[in-house]
Amino acid sequence: MEEEKEELQYHHTMPIQLRWNDVDRFGHVNNEVYFSFYDLGKSQYFAHVCPHVNWRNYGIVAVHVQADFLSQIYETDHIAVQTAVTEIGNKSFHLSQRVIDLDTGEVKCKGMSVMVTYDLIAHESMPLKQEWIEAICRFEGKDVRRNQRKPLEL
Amino acid sequence: MEEEKEELQYHHTMPIQLRWNDVDRFGHVNNEVYFSFYDLGKSQYFAHVCPHVNWRNYGIVAVHVQADFLSQIYETDHIAVQTAVTEIGNKSFHLSQRVIDLDTGEVKCKGMSVMVTYDLIAHESMPLKQEWIEAICRFEGKDVRRNQRKPLEL
Amino acid sequence: MEEEKEELQYHHTMPIQLRWNDVDRFGHVNNEVYFSFYDLGKSQYFAHVCPHVNWRNYGIVAVHVQADFLSQIYETDHIAVQTAVTEIGNKSFHLSQRVIDLDTGEVKCKGMSVMVTYDLIAHESMPLKQEWIEAICRFEGKDVRRNQRKPLEL
Amino acid sequence: MEEEKEELQYHHTMPIQLRWNDVDRFGHVNNEVYFSFYDLGKSQYFAHVCPHVNWRNYGIVAVHVQADFLSQIYETDHIAVQTAVTEIGNKSFHLSQRVIDLDTGEVKCKGMSVMVTYDLIAHESMPLKQEWIEAICRFEGKDVRRNQRKPLEL
Repeated sequence: MEEEKEELQYHHTMPIQLRWNDVDRFGHVNNEVYFSFYDLGKSQYFAHVCPHVNWRNYGIVAVHVQADFLSQIYETDHIAVQTAVTEIGNKSFHLSQRVIDLDTGEVKCKGMSVMVTYDLIAHESMPLKQEWIEAICRFEGKDVRRNQRKPLEL
Repeated sequence: MEEEKEELQYHHTMPIQLRWNDVDRFGHVNNEVYFSFYDLGKSQYFAHVCPHVNWRNYGIVAVHVQADFLSQIYETDHIAVQTAVTEIGNKSFHLSQRVIDLDTGEVKCKGMSVMVTYDLIAHESMPLKQEWIEAICRFEGKDVRRNQRKPLEL
Repeated sequence: MEEEKEELQYHHTMPIQLRWNDVDRFGHVNNEVYFSFYDLGKSQYFAHVCPHVNWRNYGIVAVHVQADFLSQIYETDHIAVQTAVTEIGNKSFHLSQRVIDLDTGEVKCKGMSVMVTYDLIAHESMPLKQEWIEAICRFEGKDVRRNQRKPLEL
Repeated sequence: MEEEKEELQYHHTMPIQLRWNDVDRFGHVNNEVYFSFYDLGKSQYFAHVCPHVNWRNYGIVAVHVQADFLSQIYETDHIAVQTAVTEIGNKSFHLSQRVIDLDTGEVKCKGMSVMVTYDLIAHESMPLKQEWIEAICRFEGKDVRRNQRKPLEL
């Protein structure tokens, strides 16, 4: 896990509907399923923060993921996935996500991904567009660009 | 599909949260995923109608399923699964389910299952208990038993 | 289930590799997973029987499925999915499939689907092409067309 | 990713049967599915290396996972998952896994997990048993214990 010097603020929280089939032989939600929560949180984050983008033309794919499984999730738990963009580089950006218990606030799983944007028409990776970067920084309430040559008007 | 002489009334409707991963290479929700909607609808139906049952001890498993896929489901659709018990026999019962579009009312998929109750402790199938049958008939607003020797007080 | 007057011969058998995650809270392979076996058997059947078709351009989708779950599948079982085209109509065709235990021959699940072919480029359903029909009948060793106006040279 | 000073040797390689449903809207195997490959590789590794253990009584669960997705997997690729235990501590152990292309040798994904053993009867985590540690070190051909107070006879 990346060290977090200050507590990360999550501005995007999405309640998750658990499915009967999410539970494995051990009676709790299988680890693999957590990544479908992260995928859903990620897609809803970008649909919300960059609503004018045609997401049929662009894919946001993970090149690296890591996750700490801190506590089991049971079928009757009320959980949500939280998503934040924490760092935007030239060719990739970092996404922090976690799964929380909505009743207790307990963090069930903490994850970080390195993502790249992909042009599905041209079939090649591409940097985040300037307007997306601005929308993300506005949503996060801070300038999350790694190289901040020029100030960003939020 | 079983012929339905009269239009079936569904008293149990559960909105479904679609996941990013539900969509397959064709861009619509994969047929296989519909059965996870049916599983979820079924489990919530019984949790609601028979709330005092310890579902760790009993399983409700399908011995026959059939489904008609009437219309594609896309990621942005708002859908729900509807569930009704339509017939209770001595050793099994019938479940009708469908997936609907909550915005348009369109029926996306219609399904029927023959279910048996399973005692997970004794590891054997068992008939539905009398109190469950009564709770189901009360919830459905009619006597759905196949053999109705004695009237059921709803 | 459709009545089978004579025992159906399956000429396409595909062993299935079970995954750890196929097993649900009851300790056996979840019903929903069977449909992924059927999907795999179906796609391999057509890749084998019609090898010159570009399956990026055509989809074979189910409009009706039904399945009888006859016996549980456990993680250590050696199973296979068997697939046969049993009837070809003008606009759809019937697929019979079953999951068998390779060690004991036991039939675990028997399924039937009504399928339609879909032109993924034109975004519309289409009849099976004549050369596919011929290849299927040759593979099945009999004329499975519903309306057999002209004899088919196998 | 942990730095690997020397190239890790994998002694456990398991070919993976891809399923039709593993492929997502982008036409390649979805990232989430890779973790089912890792789960399968892991369970087969322990079934092979510790064949006398009753795995109904013990669970091996991940508390941390990380993965680098290096190259896409397509439906027609022939892939395998490779698994090695690289480090055994007092309360946890490290598993390195990767997905390779069997035809080209290309590494598709590289992963590392921190695992703990769980006693499913007592419902608590437990250290790896001495005989498991010995079997693992024998299989790996080296002493992978973090604290090697006493030499291990391989």
